[in-house]
Amino acid sequence: MPSTPLGADPTGGRPVVPSRGRRRPLGLAEVRIDGGFWGSRQATNGGATLEHARAWMDKLGWTGNFTTAETGHGSPDRRGREFSDSEVYKLMEAVAWELGRRPDAGREAELRELTRAVRAAQAPDGYLHTAYGRPGQRPRYSDLAFGHELYCTGHLVQAAVARARVAGADELLDVARRAADHVCDTFGPDGVWGVCGHPEIEPALVELARVTGEQRYLEQASLFVERRGHRSIPQHHVGWAYFSDEQPVRAARVLRGHAVRALYLASGAVDVAVETGDDELLEAVAAQFDRTLARRTYLTGGMGARHADEAFGDDFVLPADRAYAETCAGVAAVMLAWRLLLATGQPRYADVIERILYNVVATSVSDDGRSFFYANTLHQRTPTPTVPADREQLGFGGGPRAPWFEVSCCLPNVARLLASLAGYLVTADDGGLQVHQFADAEVDTRLADGRAVGLRMRTDYPAGGDVTVRVTAADGPWTLALRVPPWAAGATVTDRAGRRSVPPGEPALFPDLAVGDEIRLALPMRPRWTVPDPRIDAVRGCVAVERGPVVLCAESVDQAGDDLDALRVDTRTPPGPDGDGATVTGGIGTPPDGPWPYADEQPATVTHPAAVRLVPYHRWARRGPSTMRVWLPTA
Amino acid sequence: MPSTPLGADPTGGRPVVPSRGRRRPLGLAEVRIDGGFWGSRQATNGGATLEHARAWMDKLGWTGNFTTAETGHGSPDRRGREFSDSEVYKLMEAVAWELGRRPDAGREAELRELTRAVRAAQAPDGYLHTAYGRPGQRPRYSDLAFGHELYCTGHLVQAAVARARVAGADELLDVARRAADHVCDTFGPDGVWGVCGHPEIEPALVELARVTGEQRYLEQASLFVERRGHRSIPQHHVGWAYFSDEQPVRAARVLRGHAVRALYLASGAVDVAVETGDDELLEAVAAQFDRTLARRTYLTGGMGARHADEAFGDDFVLPADRAYAETCAGVAAVMLAWRLLLATGQPRYADVIERILYNVVATSVSDDGRSFFYANTLHQRTPTPTVPADREQLGFGGGPRAPWFEVSCCLPNVARLLASLAGYLVTADDGGLQVHQFADAEVDTRLADGRAVGLRMRTDYPAGGDVTVRVTAADGPWTLALRVPPWAAGATVTDRAGRRSVPPGEPALFPDLAVGDEIRLALPMRPRWTVPDPRIDAVRGCVAVERGPVVLCAESVDQAGDDLDALRVDTRTPPGPDGDGATVTGGIGTPPDGPWPYADEQPATVTHPAAVRLVPYHRWARRGPSTMRVWLPTA
Repeated sequence: MPSTPLGADPTGGRPVVPSRGRRRPLGLAEVRIDGGFWGSRQATNGGATLEHARAWMDKLGWTGNFTTAETGHGSPDRRGREFSDSEVYKLMEAVAWELGRRPDAGREAELRELTRAVRAAQAPDGYLHTAYGRPGQRPRYSDLAFGHELYCTGHLVQAAVARARVAGADELLDVARRAADHVCDTFGPDGVWGVCGHPEIEPALVELARVTGEQRYLEQASLFVERRGHRSIPQHHVGWAYFSDEQPVRAARVLRGHAVRALYLASGAVDVAVETGDDELLEAVAAQFDRTLARRTYLTGGMGARHADEAFGDDFVLPADRAYAETCAGVAAVMLAWRLLLATGQPRYADVIERILYNVVATSVSDDGRSFFYANTLHQRTPTPTVPADREQLGFGGGPRAPWFEVSCCLPNVARLLASLAGYLVTADDGGLQVHQFADAEVDTRLADGRAVGLRMRTDYPAGGDVTVRVTAADGPWTLALRVPPWAAGATVTDRAGRRSVPPGEPALFPDLAVGDEIRLALPMRPRWTVPDPRIDAVRGCVAVERGPVVLCAESVDQAGDDLDALRVDTRTPPGPDGDGATVTGGIGTPPDGPWPYADEQPATVTHPAAVRLVPYHRWARRGPSTMRVWLPTA
Repeated sequence: MPSTPLGADPTGGRPVVPSRGRRRPLGLAEVRIDGGFWGSRQATNGGATLEHARAWMDKLGWTGNFTTAETGHGSPDRRGREFSDSEVYKLMEAVAWELGRRPDAGREAELRELTRAVRAAQAPDGYLHTAYGRPGQRPRYSDLAFGHELYCTGHLVQAAVARARVAGADELLDVARRAADHVCDTFGPDGVWGVCGHPEIEPALVELARVTGEQRYLEQASLFVERRGHRSIPQHHVGWAYFSDEQPVRAARVLRGHAVRALYLASGAVDVAVETGDDELLEAVAAQFDRTLARRTYLTGGMGARHADEAFGDDFVLPADRAYAETCAGVAAVMLAWRLLLATGQPRYADVIERILYNVVATSVSDDGRSFFYANTLHQRTPTPTVPADREQLGFGGGPRAPWFEVSCCLPNVARLLASLAGYLVTADDGGLQVHQFADAEVDTRLADGRAVGLRMRTDYPAGGDVTVRVTAADGPWTLALRVPPWAAGATVTDRAGRRSVPPGEPALFPDLAVGDEIRLALPMRPRWTVPDPRIDAVRGCVAVERGPVVLCAESVDQAGDDLDALRVDTRTPPGPDGDGATVTGGIGTPPDGPWPYADEQPATVTHPAAVRLVPYHRWARRGPSTMRVWLPTA
């Protein structure tokens, strides 16, 4: 890995910067989202969510913990859970990316102020956590299973990496390096043979190595990845699989246990594999993720079926009721899929990212950017209550969008993803650019040989299916690859050569582009039936409707009192278009009530015909209390 | 309520003794199980389980906690969770019942020794809990939500009630009265306006009032029941419904929240309603239970679908995968159903008890009585591991039968139910006896007017469906009512008048009985298809097979390598008899694997014909690691 200068990344900063791989990511100065679906969400994120998160962290004392810790004494007043430091770091990372997207003096000052507070809490030896190690606090690293110390350090490092890439090395990078050095000193080859119960330090250390050129961080990340799976974490009732600690990373066949933990670990393993040229490790993780997609992922791209341990279920255990599908698992799956996309060039990882963005990330955030789903169920049987704007939700997990949670990881996690989202749209290789996500965006970069390339993309996707790409820069001919999603049977492209069909599931290639060339991709946006693998017991006999990349759902506010759970759809008629949703027909009929719900045969149900409006799943629970279902039983 | 003398109950002791109601329960001296399905399980319970539980409680220090507490000082060495005292009390209750079933000098000495230990730990003011109130411990009643103090007192009282009824008042009753007096002093009309996060004190205090004639205990139980539902428990992330504290008992429509909590509370509410003549309260609880049976109960009678909070799900949310169906919820539902049976005389409550006994209680216990299911899933996708006999299972919940759990409520709970099971078989009214459960048993009692009545019942039920009842005592003619289960279409009875059909779901009546009369009930035991209410999403498109009161299941050990989850049964052919199980036919075929489990249409699956053996669900996981499913998808 070449040593990298510590000035700002000339690309404007990118979330992941592998030293090798099939695709090169572009930075925030190279890709700018300037409108449309994601442009408005970025505006809400920058204009409301970041401030909202900061206000809650101040109110709850999570930022204040750093000031308290500065005294060197543990305070009985330390506020929040043992991982609250990480929320402050995630917010700092989000602010760092947001400054790359849109400079702002006030926000710049805020980040510097937070950096000073964090620095002041750092121990002389580099250790940094507000909850451990001072008089009156628990000893450092006394609870590797649930202490979240290395997890917090990981998020500190990620914030520093974002900052350094966007703005150049500053004191936050110093703080992160000293904290990382302390981690390496403590957990190095001759140190404590342990791992953190919550992975995150692994990808963070590789990214820090990429920014600093310091090999030691990569080696430590590799050590953590290889140590995992040997049951070094003390036995706990959740079991070792919860921590992905029951089986070595390279021996596992599928992601399991706590979903966010598993996905962060896998991301770190890909980072290690890429930087060390360990193709065996890369292939192992890719195979695990592929199997997870094939057997343990909701239609929405949501991962982690279980509430009890926020964990993946067994293969094909994907109940719509109380689907957990944690928002953070969506963010983490984007992290992993992006790394695999860069490493392998496989467009299927962009398909997954698109699915998660439109159906998990976009679902989680409220219109005003000030409340969030923690979990993203696919079936709501009782109307969601409304949570007051000043109410902190205790604990975590299910329920309605809430302004804040006692465990509030999801909110700053989405914020950092949205602020850096431009970095996930387009990649480059030696021959040109690859468009992975469709959005109003402008791209300007140079290929490896120095040639300028650029494009302007315009679309009202996903409301509409037309995407126009105009070439804005070309020092000689280059090739554009436009992703054609696997659902897009019937897609066409129009270019200099005219209009033609393109097969779904593989990129459409446009070689020899010159400035002024315009390409139009027309994706079929008719709503379509989707049936589940028969091994998914929980939705047997059901269909869903998708439209483009968007999963649709039935919501009670559209049903004039009809009970959604009494709906049976008629799949002989295709779903009809209805704005950005669809209409399906069928019958509504509630079975007669009896004293016992099991019988030799069920009594006949009288049904009346019904037309049911379906809306994008990401828009549900925005029009007052409602019930909802994605999977619709067939007649 | 009449004052009751404090000598032993001449009936030999009964678990519930209401002062009024449609049916009078019989005691352990009046009904004796002397063989058959339950006889062998009682023998295992008395011969292995009680000793096993005692050994674990000694090994883990739960019994020793009482000795440590005797010093009056909190010890940092206090062992176990905050509710471990209650396990010792449940064991004492089980031993007390077992002594009623079968006197044993060693066991008698053991109970006296435990009583002395418990008494020694009681504070001078009557308060008794080993984890609170001493120097170095948390203050008394400082955590009503999760402290389990009143819960533990409730189980102490239940143990004392059992002991007093079986053997007469002894020092355990003194201890319990002093503890109950302290509860009344603390939480009485002018005391702390609070309730315990875990109900149990409510039925216990009513039972203590019944034993002692002391009205104060009934009044305190009534206070606790009426206080519940007003959110007096501090806000917690599990929500008030978890504690049934979000809505008053008499206003609720269905049981909700933590299943065991809800069922214990409802049992206490019935006890209060019966003793105070509060028919409104009785009807409210009966309606809640009826609705719970109709919408929130598994085919097995299991209750509580959720792992995360051990709670009832919404109506019709009854996933087979990871069905929680806690063993303790089965015991608690028997408690509630029995109270409602005594109060109302409705045979449907005996139907429920039968279902739970054969499909939850009998399932939980291993053949040797030394390991237990905590949760009783209806679908096991990966083979159950074997737990070593010396391994304590951390925490609680799912997984295989284990010899012990960190939270080991289920094991002594089943033990106390099995030891007192004879008390749940038969009741009396003014005209005769009602047989609710079929078992090898002898009954001898007197009716209210003093007439002796008796019978001897012989059956190999549920392996066979023939039940023979011979009248063994009759001072003049009396009437026998034999429950005919609702599934028993085609049942016949044979008596003096010959053989005739009887309708299912209502008792068959035999008046004017005399000594020597013999009645034969023939229940149809052909296995039968059972289909679920279409609102139970999780098992749509599936059938189950039941045989008599027993739910059957497919288990992989019978399938020679075929994947149970690939089975599709053909319901055009009725299930064939196969011993106490059944055989069904269908096809086995695993769908081809793809990268994504959702598609426009699913690829065709090649299947091969298969005959699948089904065995009683209560026998699963006894022949080595296996997968299992109760609900079978149809072709």
